[in-house]
Amino acid sequence: MSIRIKGARWSAAAAGIKNQSKGQKPPLDLALLELVKGSSVAAVFTQNAFCAAPVVIAKQRVSKLSSQHNKNIYCLINSGNANAGTGKAGLHAVEQSTQAIAQAIDCAAADILPFSTGVIGEPLPVDTFTHSAAKLVSGLADDNWQVAAEAIMTTDTVAKIEAVSVEVEGQAVEIAGIAKGAGMIKPNMATMLAYIVCDAKIPQEALQACLSASVNQSFNRITVDGDTSTNDACVLAATAGGGAVLDQKHKAWPDLVAAISGVLRKLAIAIIRDAEGASKFVQIDVRGGIDASECLQVAYTVAESPLVKTAFFASDANWGRVLAAVGRAGLKDLDVDKVEIILGDYLICKNGGRVFDYDESIASGIMQQEEIHLTINLNRGNADETVWTSDLSHDYVRINAEYRT
Amino acid sequence: MSIRIKGARWSAAAAGIKNQSKGQKPPLDLALLELVKGSSVAAVFTQNAFCAAPVVIAKQRVSKLSSQHNKNIYCLINSGNANAGTGKAGLHAVEQSTQAIAQAIDCAAADILPFSTGVIGEPLPVDTFTHSAAKLVSGLADDNWQVAAEAIMTTDTVAKIEAVSVEVEGQAVEIAGIAKGAGMIKPNMATMLAYIVCDAKIPQEALQACLSASVNQSFNRITVDGDTSTNDACVLAATAGGGAVLDQKHKAWPDLVAAISGVLRKLAIAIIRDAEGASKFVQIDVRGGIDASECLQVAYTVAESPLVKTAFFASDANWGRVLAAVGRAGLKDLDVDKVEIILGDYLICKNGGRVFDYDESIASGIMQQEEIHLTINLNRGNADETVWTSDLSHDYVRINAEYRT
Repeated sequence: MSIRIKGARWSAAAAGIKNQSKGQKPPLDLALLELVKGSSVAAVFTQNAFCAAPVVIAKQRVSKLSSQHNKNIYCLINSGNANAGTGKAGLHAVEQSTQAIAQAIDCAAADILPFSTGVIGEPLPVDTFTHSAAKLVSGLADDNWQVAAEAIMTTDTVAKIEAVSVEVEGQAVEIAGIAKGAGMIKPNMATMLAYIVCDAKIPQEALQACLSASVNQSFNRITVDGDTSTNDACVLAATAGGGAVLDQKHKAWPDLVAAISGVLRKLAIAIIRDAEGASKFVQIDVRGGIDASECLQVAYTVAESPLVKTAFFASDANWGRVLAAVGRAGLKDLDVDKVEIILGDYLICKNGGRVFDYDESIASGIMQQEEIHLTINLNRGNADETVWTSDLSHDYVRINAEYRT
Repeated sequence: MSIRIKGARWSAAAAGIKNQSKGQKPPLDLALLELVKGSSVAAVFTQNAFCAAPVVIAKQRVSKLSSQHNKNIYCLINSGNANAGTGKAGLHAVEQSTQAIAQAIDCAAADILPFSTGVIGEPLPVDTFTHSAAKLVSGLADDNWQVAAEAIMTTDTVAKIEAVSVEVEGQAVEIAGIAKGAGMIKPNMATMLAYIVCDAKIPQEALQACLSASVNQSFNRITVDGDTSTNDACVLAATAGGGAVLDQKHKAWPDLVAAISGVLRKLAIAIIRDAEGASKFVQIDVRGGIDASECLQVAYTVAESPLVKTAFFASDANWGRVLAAVGRAGLKDLDVDKVEIILGDYLICKNGGRVFDYDESIASGIMQQEEIHLTINLNRGNADETVWTSDLSHDYVRINAEYRT
């Protein structure tokens, strides 16, 4: 797949931050994204109170990028070390590592947004950045999306890239994005990073609004285990490299937002498909809630229940576990007799119990599938929400028990 | 262990509700507790909106037991079937099964409190009660605590009994209790049942206050996986069979509450020690919180984090996972630099990172132990709370994946 977005270049390097497996070549663990001057940049970050040092500094630097920022902007991403739980030394390491790259570029360190993912609590080896700086900068090219996607991986088993083209008044807008993550949470909490670039010219405020709305319907709708990481970040940039110019008042704005949202959604789903140890991909639709909030409350309680997840792993149509999770989700005045549970398109449970002519073989057949669609209808309002999740397998336990060994 | 409480008799039977393993004798699955007339009874039940049919009816019947209830009171408990998610048919089955036992006793069905635990969503086989009624009633004896504890087990690997004697003004008060549960949540949500009896004479209101306070510091402080069951129930009875008479104004009341609380706490801890697949027993102390609520918020977020639990399973001193769980617990204005993480008595983390002279071998040595004590000091208030939990092991996944096979 050859992807190019005008105004954006990537490079990647094997800096020696990740451990090298015996007999394997050194893994890529450093990526640099260059956004041409005139680009606008929006970003969202983890809500974890213990946010990593690069998150602290990236937030500060993003907030200082004005729309009159007439210089290139860079994203510097390392995998293999989260630089989280590292105190003041961690902040200092970010300053030093971005300074090393800035010298090689000949720009200010403030123009470089830092991101890290990997093991928590270990000092970030700044010398690996220094040694790799020249190569990283000279390697910038417009067709490097694939290697960049590989360089940001940790326990991911596949690189995650999505691209789409949308037409705005006869002019194509190209959008591409990469993400890493093998679940909402990764070993050592270094979960999810995503970088999406389009070649339209879009004001920063509009871009941020687009990002926030899109994240809310994509990365904020997935869970593997309910943990929120210390390092989550998602960046959306508009390079103005193509011809299109848009803002929120443009009549094609909703189309562009839909296209960008689509890319984020595909990346989010790719993360769940690659979730740690997962053997199932599960979509949970909660319908008929009073508001979105209570739909999500139910969806996440079900999606994160270890008992529901082990039932998915076992392909066991143990709908009682779903029912019990709905019951403990904390909804006020829930009329349990109104709740319906539908597996695939098979109505399993209504009126507080399973249907009269329940046929376990039909439910078991659906549970055998790798993709499972579970619908919970609360039948008390008009709100609907969807969450994607994975199962809880032996491999999940193995991966997370062995991660640091 | 021969335990007797004056005024209380138990019997147990193998009624054929549980599946019989090949080559094994039929397992005990029905227990009956008789509380002599004059007993007072207090009870607490699951908060799950989908509460099981026996919970619905036990609640109604408990509320109608006045202090002038001058008849024997019975608790009828079956394992192997939760009678949850069974709709109106489930309520009817409770009426029929308690009626069958009531006929054998020659009492009103309303004097029998029903409890069930086991597989959810399957019809309760009423005929097993009918067939076992005569034997169950004739088997009532004062030294049957052990068989009763066995009869209420599901995936428990050990029967859970605790007994203690406390002196009130020169007069001994005997207290005994049994519980079942292999975690806060059991396969199919049929979690935790407990029956505690003392031989003092205590008014119902005082007894209920004592139970609520005691449960709050015992069964409400344990978690295996964060799920709340459809069938949880805890009963505390006072038979007046001994000589002591107490109420909340009695100067020895705090001693009695402490003794009863102690029994509940031991039973709760026994449940965690027997948690499904558990290889570790973990006590989490959260200190220095603003109030109990935020201490518990942090304690449960850490205790239920699949990543923290797999680290315990692996004996991996991955304190970064604890830190990240604290960070996502949702505490307002948390100053992460004040948080301390102490493993055993080894201070691992302060000032937002690990201690300067951190020695992984010390932390690893502590993690190898079967009992682990983790303290999180928030250093922002005077509230402390303790929660007990277990690890997340391969066996947990196996047990819950295979439960219905």
